Formats: sequence, structure tokens, C-alpha cells
Amino acid sequence: MKVSQPVRLTMVGGGSWATALVKILSENNVSIKWWLRKTSDAEHIKKFGHNPSYLSDVQINTRKVKVCTKIREAFRDSEYVVLAVPAAFVADALTGIKPDHFTGKCVISAIKGMIPGANQLVTDWVSEQYGVPSERMSVIAGPCHAEEVALEKYSYLTIASPDPACAENVSNLLRCRFVQTTPVDDIYGIEYSAVMKNIIALACGITRGLGYGDNFQAVLVSNAMQEIKRFVDAIYPKHRDLSGSAYLGDLLVTAYSPFSRNRTFGTLIGRGYTIQSAQAEMNMIAEGYYAVKSIYEINRRFNVKMPIVDAVYTILYEKAAPTAEMNALKELLT
Amino acid sequence: MKVSQPVRLTMVGGGSWATALVKILSENNVSIKWWLRKTSDAEHIKKFGHNPSYLSDVQINTRKVKVCTKIREAFRDSEYVVLAVPAAFVADALTGIKPDHFTGKCVISAIKGMIPGANQLVTDWVSEQYGVPSERMSVIAGPCHAEEVALEKYSYLTIASPDPACAENVSNLLRCRFVQTTPVDDIYGIEYSAVMKNIIALACGITRGLGYGDNFQAVLVSNAMQEIKRFVDAIYPKHRDLSGSAYLGDLLVTAYSPFSRNRTFGTLIGRGYTIQSAQAEMNMIAEGYYAVKSIYEINRRFNVKMPIVDAVYTILYEKAAPTAEMNALKELLT
Repeated sequence: MKVSQPVRLTMVGGGSWATALVKILSENNVSIKWWLRKTSDAEHIKKFGHNPSYLSDVQINTRKVKVCTKIREAFRDSEYVVLAVPAAFVADALTGIKPDHFTGKCVISAIKGMIPGANQLVTDWVSEQYGVPSERMSVIAGPCHAEEVALEKYSYLTIASPDPACAENVSNLLRCRFVQTTPVDDIYGIEYSAVMKNIIALACGITRGLGYGDNFQAVLVSNAMQEIKRFVDAIYPKHRDLSGSAYLGDLLVTAYSPFSRNRTFGTLIGRGYTIQSAQAEMNMIAEGYYAVKSIYEINRRFNVKMPIVDAVYTILYEKAAPTAEMNALKELLT
Repeated sequence: MKVSQPVRLTMVGGGSWATALVKILSENNVSIKWWLRKTSDAEHIKKFGHNPSYLSDVQINTRKVKVCTKIREAFRDSEYVVLAVPAAFVADALTGIKPDHFTGKCVISAIKGMIPGANQLVTDWVSEQYGVPSERMSVIAGPCHAEEVALEKYSYLTIASPDPACAENVSNLLRCRFVQTTPVDDIYGIEYSAVMKNIIALACGITRGLGYGDNFQAVLVSNAMQEIKRFVDAIYPKHRDLSGSAYLGDLLVTAYSPFSRNRTFGTLIGRGYTIQSAQAEMNMIAEGYYAVKSIYEINRRFNVKMPIVDAVYTILYEKAAPTAEMNALKELLT
């Protein structure tokens, strides 16, 4: 896409996905104000043109990208705000931002998680907290390891928004030499599906840790697709085909990746680590850990049959033995 | 399942899947006559109780399993015949067998391929050649690496037959400590889907060989599920959910396995090997090589949109450059 005036965009987050998105966006005529929490990372990017903590091979085009550590400064004058921090840290990252600061901006969520405690999708939470109208909300989904974006491996993103024009605009922003984008309207279906795939990847990890093989995982993932469809169709009824890249593809790239944090976390749990020791080992929290609690609690109202979510929840939050839970689960799969 | 009289069964084929099925069936009260083409393998099994060529760790219970190299002898008195040779070799394996020899028997196809030249599913071909009525035909499907069966990794099989009683009986025969089975009726859908997954695995291999990554593969597999559904629904219209283990699961276990012959064959093609040199390297033919020709030719009548099948066909049979074909294909995926 070529436009005459650069689009002004705020990137919130300093992790690998934020870095990958900065790389993609820099391919187009976009002027980015990039907010990072860590001052030392911000300084390093200014000085050396790459993020020292994540995807450090990615060259940052500092003509297009201005780094800052003050969130209000990052928000000033921008037309788009991309949220790319873990769901648990969104509120913290936006400290000092008031509803007024969002006025006139389109929000793009690149987060695949739920706001813990609130049990809300990120887009719902942002709408509620900051009064952003739903037609100005969009999400970025699709099977996309940040690491492969760094390598310019050909990838696909799906951009969902209730407003077709918004989905189209964001799609244009992100389309480039090595990324194909598709605008769609099913924002809730895609967002919930993205949240749930982290739980499924965690379940895959648990079974790996327990010694189950590829045959079992293929069945687990197939059953998971049915479980995701039952849940999403129950809470947002709509005709949708879950074999699309934004649903199935996104699950596959996570569930089959040894680099998935959720899968790794699950593997440690399956091997007998406690949650605390698994977290300590990984030095981070997997999104699926929070997501399963939110989805489980939301489902109390809907009562959708979700044996995989139930099993993961019971293992993580009720200290059930993974062996026993998976023994019970395996009888329920077909 | 426990029955008083042992069920009498003929196993046709000496490869890894045949060996895995012999292991599973031996868990139940089944008396097996196992036909192998290679006399030396048959002798070895008789003497040492394991197949020297495939899954040689599997202990063969020679009280239950009688090995033979004469196909007519293997057929005598049996109630079930399991076909477990590559589709290209079925006719050859059954040399000397007349329609009468099939009388009263149930046929179980464990083959995921088409009869080359005839462009027929194995079950259709057997029905036509030997007059076996369709209600006595069944297929074994589901995500199941033979290697994991050898290790007794927990696995699932789906048994399809137009006759519910037949599907149920075969399901009972194959259910055991480490294998769960489900009877269903969609024999054609499952058989075509199993054939097509080999083509998709081959496509995955080609893209791997060309340097595409996990992001791309997730999109390819998602699009493939839609392509399989379009085709199968066109030739056998029926309400079916392709996220079941016998469809999606079977595709996943093949497309994501570095042990898949089809994927390996595709990888060599993607790296620039000729078909002849890829075959020589592997010392075998991948089912997908024949399957893509059959499906492509069948689709001349149906005109279903199948860009992945078309691309693989064009590369393998019209000597198109893999790079150019995949460049064109990637624009058609979403």
C-alpha cells in the first residue's frame, strides 16, 4: 500500500510480537511511535536500531520509528493504537491514559488473551474502560510466529473488525512483501478462538509431558476444534467456518510449535512441575494460564461441553493430577 | 472385546501398518492368517516372532498369528480380510483370488490411496472386481502412526462402513488397551479425505523444501481442509463435520510428521530433485504421487476449486517449477 501522508500509529509493547509488527508496518508508509516499558531497551533501539531483548536481528528503521517510554507521548496525534502486551499487563501499560486520549483513534488489538479478573476480551475491556466505539476496534489474528516474520517467511494475517472499512484499512496497513492480509467481520469469534488456542496448546503440552504421542495430539486438536466451535457459537451465534486460517491455522501454529510458551508451560506441568516451579523455569506466565480461568468461569453461564478446557482448569486451579485428568479426558475424545 | 470363538481374519500386507494392525488385533480374541509377499520376512516371523523389515520391536504372538505366503491359503475360512498394502499393489497381492474367495467375508481396507489407472477408491475397486457387497466393506481411518502403535501410545481409529453393524463389529475387533475405536457411516468421505491428506502432506513437503515456514504451513493446512471439504461434499453430498479425527486428525498426523513418506517425497521435490531421483532416494513411491493424478482426473468431471491439488499435480505431472507454482498458489490462499 502506498499513501501520500504517512499513517500515524502508536505501538504499545516491547515483546517479540510488537517488534515483528513494527517490522511489518515499517514496510509501508507508516510513522510509528513505539512505547516500550523498559528504558534500557528503548535507549538501545534508539542507539543501535534493534531491540536487544526480542528478535534482535530485526533492523528497526529509525526514520519511521520513534521510540519512547512515556505512554501519553506515544499516544499523541496518532490515528491507530496497536496493543501488543500480554493481556495481564494492558491496564498497567495504559496507566495515565484517559478516555479522551483514545478519541478519534482506531484500536488494533494484537493480544491473544483475556483480561484476568474481568474475564473480558481485550476489545470489550478497552471499549468499556475508554469508551472506544466497537466500529473503531479491530484484532490481528492468524498463524504468525514473530520469529518467522523476522526472517520474512511468507505469512498471513486476518484482520477482524465489526466495521468493514476499519478491517480494510488495518489490512492495508499490514499487507507487505511477505505478509498477506484478509479483512473479516467476526471479531468476537476470532478473538475467543485465539484465546482458546492457547489453552489447547497448554493441553497439548501437558499430554506431551505425560508421554502421549503424535497420534493422541492429532485427536486432541481435532476435538479441540469442535470444542472451540461449540463455545464460540454459543456465546456469539453466527455462521462461521472454523477451518479458516484465523481459527484452525492459528491453533495449529501454536499447538505444533515447540516454541509456544503455552505448550512449554504445559509440558512442564505434565512432567510434574508445580505451577510455581514451571513459572520460575520459564521466567514468564503463559497466556493460557489466565485464559483457562476466564473461559471456565464464563462457561458457567453457558454450560457448553468443554472437556479439554475443564481438564486444563482442573489441573491448574484445583491441583488435580495431570495423569488422572488426562486418563479421564482420553475416554471422552473420539 | 471378548468373544468365545476366535474371529478368523486374513491380513494382506507385510509393511509397518499391517504389522501394527496385527499387534492391535492380537490383543483380542482373533486368529490371524498373515500373508506377506516376502518369503524371507515370513520365515523370520515364524522363527523369531518379529517382522525383520518393519516395526521389528513388535513381538508377534505366533499362537494367534499364522504366517503364510500363499494368498489363497491366507483367505481360507476367514471371516474378515484386511487389505494393508499400497494401493498400487493391491491387484498384484490378490493375484489368484476370485470373487468366490470373498464370499461371506467382510473386507476391511487399511489403505489410504487410490487404485492407479482405475482412479477408484480401494473399496469401490474391490466391490467391482470381486462382487463384495458394500455393506460388507469398511475402512480403517484415523490419525495413527504405526510406529506409535508399536510403542502402545494411546491412539484412536475410526471405522467407517455403510452398514452400522459391520462398522460396529470391526470397531470391536480393533478396540484394545491402547486403541479407542469409533464406528461411523461416512465411508466415502473418510476414504477420499484419507487419500487427499497424502496429497496435502506432499504439498507441505514441497513448501518445506522451498523454505516456507510454519506460518505458511498452518495456512496451507487450513485451506486444505476447505479444499477437501469442497471436493468430498461435491462427489458424495452428505452433512459431515471435517474437524473429526478421521478427517482433520488424519491430515494433521501426516502433514506435521517428519516421518511421513509423502511429506518427505514433497520436500525432495521442493529442494529440486527430479521425481525419479526423489523416488530413488526414498526407495519407494509415496501414495500421494498416484493419488494426486487420480483426484485431478476425477475432478475434471466435478470442477471443484482445488488450487492445492492442482499445484501438486502440475509440479509432478507437468514438470512445472515448484517455485513458480507455489508463488502462484500462495496468492490464492487466505
